[in-house]
Amino acid sequence: MIRVAVMGAAGYLGGELLRLLIGHPGVEVVQAVSTRFPGRRVDSVHPNLRAQTDLVFSAADDLTGCDVLFLATPHRTTMTLLPKVRARAGTVIDLSGDFRLPDPAVYERYYGLPHTAPELLGAFVPGVPELFRDDLAKADLISVPGCMATAAILALRPLAGLVGPDVQIDARTGSSGSGALAGDGNLHAERSGAMRVFAPVRHRHEAEVSRLTGLNARMTATGVEAVRGVQVVCHATGTADERTIRRAYREHYADEPFVRIVAHRKGAHRLPDPKLLSGSNYCDVGFAVDGDRITAIAALDNLVKGGAGAAVQCLNIRTGQHETLGLGFPGLHPV
Amino acid sequence: MIRVAVMGAAGYLGGELLRLLIGHPGVEVVQAVSTRFPGRRVDSVHPNLRAQTDLVFSAADDLTGCDVLFLATPHRTTMTLLPKVRARAGTVIDLSGDFRLPDPAVYERYYGLPHTAPELLGAFVPGVPELFRDDLAKADLISVPGCMATAAILALRPLAGLVGPDVQIDARTGSSGSGALAGDGNLHAERSGAMRVFAPVRHRHEAEVSRLTGLNARMTATGVEAVRGVQVVCHATGTADERTIRRAYREHYADEPFVRIVAHRKGAHRLPDPKLLSGSNYCDVGFAVDGDRITAIAALDNLVKGGAGAAVQCLNIRTGQHETLGLGFPGLHPV
Amino acid sequence: MIRVAVMGAAGYLGGELLRLLIGHPGVEVVQAVSTRFPGRRVDSVHPNLRAQTDLVFSAADDLTGCDVLFLATPHRTTMTLLPKVRARAGTVIDLSGDFRLPDPAVYERYYGLPHTAPELLGAFVPGVPELFRDDLAKADLISVPGCMATAAILALRPLAGLVGPDVQIDARTGSSGSGALAGDGNLHAERSGAMRVFAPVRHRHEAEVSRLTGLNARMTATGVEAVRGVQVVCHATGTADERTIRRAYREHYADEPFVRIVAHRKGAHRLPDPKLLSGSNYCDVGFAVDGDRITAIAALDNLVKGGAGAAVQCLNIRTGQHETLGLGFPGLHPV
Amino acid sequence: MIRVAVMGAAGYLGGELLRLLIGHPGVEVVQAVSTRFPGRRVDSVHPNLRAQTDLVFSAADDLTGCDVLFLATPHRTTMTLLPKVRARAGTVIDLSGDFRLPDPAVYERYYGLPHTAPELLGAFVPGVPELFRDDLAKADLISVPGCMATAAILALRPLAGLVGPDVQIDARTGSSGSGALAGDGNLHAERSGAMRVFAPVRHRHEAEVSRLTGLNARMTATGVEAVRGVQVVCHATGTADERTIRRAYREHYADEPFVRIVAHRKGAHRLPDPKLLSGSNYCDVGFAVDGDRITAIAALDNLVKGGAGAAVQCLNIRTGQHETLGLGFPGLHPV
Repeated sequence: MIRVAVMGAAGYLGGELLRLLIGHPGVEVVQAVSTRFPGRRVDSVHPNLRAQTDLVFSAADDLTGCDVLFLATPHRTTMTLLPKVRARAGTVIDLSGDFRLPDPAVYERYYGLPHTAPELLGAFVPGVPELFRDDLAKADLISVPGCMATAAILALRPLAGLVGPDVQIDARTGSSGSGALAGDGNLHAERSGAMRVFAPVRHRHEAEVSRLTGLNARMTATGVEAVRGVQVVCHATGTADERTIRRAYREHYADEPFVRIVAHRKGAHRLPDPKLLSGSNYCDVGFAVDGDRITAIAALDNLVKGGAGAAVQCLNIRTGQHETLGLGFPGLHPV
Repeated sequence: MIRVAVMGAAGYLGGELLRLLIGHPGVEVVQAVSTRFPGRRVDSVHPNLRAQTDLVFSAADDLTGCDVLFLATPHRTTMTLLPKVRARAGTVIDLSGDFRLPDPAVYERYYGLPHTAPELLGAFVPGVPELFRDDLAKADLISVPGCMATAAILALRPLAGLVGPDVQIDARTGSSGSGALAGDGNLHAERSGAMRVFAPVRHRHEAEVSRLTGLNARMTATGVEAVRGVQVVCHATGTADERTIRRAYREHYADEPFVRIVAHRKGAHRLPDPKLLSGSNYCDVGFAVDGDRITAIAALDNLVKGGAGAAVQCLNIRTGQHETLGLGFPGLHPV
Repeated sequence: MIRVAVMGAAGYLGGELLRLLIGHPGVEVVQAVSTRFPGRRVDSVHPNLRAQTDLVFSAADDLTGCDVLFLATPHRTTMTLLPKVRARAGTVIDLSGDFRLPDPAVYERYYGLPHTAPELLGAFVPGVPELFRDDLAKADLISVPGCMATAAILALRPLAGLVGPDVQIDARTGSSGSGALAGDGNLHAERSGAMRVFAPVRHRHEAEVSRLTGLNARMTATGVEAVRGVQVVCHATGTADERTIRRAYREHYADEPFVRIVAHRKGAHRLPDPKLLSGSNYCDVGFAVDGDRITAIAALDNLVKGGAGAAVQCLNIRTGQHETLGLGFPGLHPV
Repeated sequence: MIRVAVMGAAGYLGGELLRLLIGHPGVEVVQAVSTRFPGRRVDSVHPNLRAQTDLVFSAADDLTGCDVLFLATPHRTTMTLLPKVRARAGTVIDLSGDFRLPDPAVYERYYGLPHTAPELLGAFVPGVPELFRDDLAKADLISVPGCMATAAILALRPLAGLVGPDVQIDARTGSSGSGALAGDGNLHAERSGAMRVFAPVRHRHEAEVSRLTGLNARMTATGVEAVRGVQVVCHATGTADERTIRRAYREHYADEPFVRIVAHRKGAHRLPDPKLLSGSNYCDVGFAVDGDRITAIAALDNLVKGGAGAAVQCLNIRTGQHETLGLGFPGLHPV
């Protein structure tokens, strides 16, 4: 059994990690660390884990050793935390934004403050199995990309060489992406039914997309009515016809266990929709062509394939287990 | 022009009062008081009032005199506030819970603390035009009932004499009823799609229903997915047949401008549904009979007929204006 | 491997059966029958099953033999269908309403037409493992109760002997309960955000509750904003105090794998809420006491514990497999 | 009083026209024509009009003369209907898609069939007061643009001369835009919570935007969870800085009664969101700049400013009444 611990375990990504890890047959969860709720039962904060676990949150100071340590801690906090906890685990998988961008100047441009551990930035392998499977198999430091970045990267990678460098990404997201701390902006009465353009230009995740696709990505982001779910609609230009593009997607993802191509001629579900993916580790990708315009679309559950699920998939790869272990839930319909 | 002021103007009921009063042809809003946002533009907090007003929030200490003062301040705060501001206005219309129950012992039983101004309790006329129109025409102190209480009172009053004393009320409400202050419970990701029984027994409003209907009311309350809207389903017993009951409703509400009887044989909209009433001052009431069981149903917008709209209706009655003035919006469909 | 077939496989209950059965390690799905879509891929109708199965819908005439046959066919259709297909399978598990009420007179009273196979009514064992586990282990004909009936039965059974005979049940349901066929009533623009009292009195499921609890149950039902999920709030009277009632629930459900007692003092999730249960086979039950009034509450996913999940639980019992096999998904939070 | 009639009065746009026209002080509704429901009360189909009107739907053959005739009839039907009813009214205001594109070849390219009344195409003035106020004052044939087209036109017009010709428009819409007829795609269980890219490329409204802005517009469209509401996010390129762009919007819309500029530095409501606009005739427009990228955003209620409200605004202009008459509802918050 792989011994794992989760820091930031009371947040939404932390809770999703616990759901997946508790249900994982090859893993033992030795600690769930929360600075807010040490001593409280995990299922008092994550009520879906009632009858699944008797685990109690630990204080951060009590962190013990483990094989794999997951960091679901906030941006900014994580880069000061990591050096302190690095020695506790063989492998650290970070879900925060702090180690996603290897260039500290780019980090500062997008996060608005200097990085405090720039020497570590280059050591992280991106938690994208579809791109870095071999590296992940031996990585000790893994950084899972942002949820919208993962969606856009998987939507766009098959188009490399087929489209021009400029791509405009329109991302939409549910409310769970803004976390479990209440604030004026995520009050139900304000957020319900909203179409809130919270990043009309320069969403942070565009830097990750540019880096991992080689494109020049621009991203806007809008909060829409949903709790879970991210969808990206990417606008690119190129001369390839639909058949060529379809073939590129098929070849690219032929052997991927968690990427499905969804690009049908008709039907309500002919293109990727995150509604179907709640709880699932799939990222559905699709496309459409109109002359020289190519629209690439991807959908995923921001807390699973966009976070905790990708992290568990990385753990499986790193520890030599079957890549899909513990990630079998296919999603619901209708829902 | 009637000169009015609103205290607690940054809350949801306060904002709804401002919407109605700014659009009211017989009223001038002289002040909108907020302890949280003095000096800020009203439309920065209530964005639906952009281009409707240039009003700026006043501090509580700057309250001036006016003809009618609306209190949309919190429970507990209001009973200490009222004696201080009483002299500023000819008429005070209170929307809080503090002056709804004339018996201080009942107040303490339901609110969990002693009343600090018990000598004023008996001076308030309930803000229910359907029951107290004549009293309201000369009242200087008016207390608008709770939103669920108003719905249940209007659903049940026509049944007086036709049903036994015990009535079980099942109330459902949108999230705006819990106010504009963010907390763990009204975070969008937690509240969205919920069916949250927040008062499985003894909801406070049952005391108001018992008082104003003469019945022995018990009320449970559940938060369901909606921002606005309250619905009550009331279970009573009696021997009257459907025809008798329909006649009772018709006679009771024949001349009421804001009560509609909705009790059809079929169709998706055959019984009251608050979805249709957002922004409207209607309370729709309906019923069904099965042997000795009578189900009475009512729906309203908790911020309008369940609060600000009822208050404006009272103002109209008190100041001798047409009762429906400023309250003409009929609601939308679909919505 | 147990060989199973599903009739009515294109509906929502049929799709949920397929999701659970395809993921079940002890079962092989040999046929998915649909009269509407014979020859079409299953995943073209149930998009969550993409990459889970290559199954194609069969025509009804092509039904082959199997060990267990699930009927997810409509009310009225099923009672004429059953005699024709009975011989095809060792065990038939029916999810329709047609074999839930053993007395044909009661059936006619609630369904409005005479039963066409009254001689079979007595042969069915109700698909409620919590009540009929031993009978189910050898039953050849099983009838799964209505979703709201199951919730109410599980909420009320521990109160037998502690409450008076009359119980008023207030049921709330998501839209998936009305099936996959489009109609004016379930159009999104009409149904979204609704609080639609579609059964103000005498919902059919009350007859099942009365039968299986020994109480005199009355049920109203309201459609609220949700796709999945049923909640019942049951009003009873009795003299037992809270401690006695809590003990009754604990004793009753101590060994049940799919019933959790959720009755905490505080917190947003202190009572059962179906929001947490989408995709899960749990039925959460809780209660509150106020003097002689007892409120019992239950929540479940109408397509899982209220239908397909209960049916698979029955299959596990009938075929001697572990009762929880294939039913491990715990539900999500937030969602 | 202006005498008006509505054809297609049982649909969602027809119902919204009736709501606005019945509440309009300068108008008398003489007929509401429906081919589906002749003889039925209008409020049996549009329940928000209960107690507002006793009008009964007329059959199409019974259409009488009137001053202004509104056509809220379906695409394709309307181009054959118009020649037959043209003589019944001094002015016809069409809300369908059939007379929006003056070039029959463009019509055929986007609608997939030849136009049957091409000789009339050039006679229509677009129902966009912000662009054609003077023409509308004397127009006898008026064609109201598509809801997403209106939003995009109002978002982009101030940028004329400041941005390059290519603009990518990402439109999101609620479910009411697909009309009142039930189908598989707009079933609540399927449509609820969806992010459905129903037009990944070449949405029809792009042709209207190109025509009325002089830009080369491409539009994708996604259905998101909402009943009412359209939002467009438009991506353009140019060298103007934010100050220049803000001044362009201000100058362009300084005197417009129904366009508000919403482009604040912070806050949940700093950019246009249709959630606030349900029932209102406002179109809110905003923008953001990042280097050479300019994002222009607009939001409106598709049934009001995107349809019936724009039509009433045109009626006011055409008949010499105050332009805002009957259109005063400002929208709700929260909602």
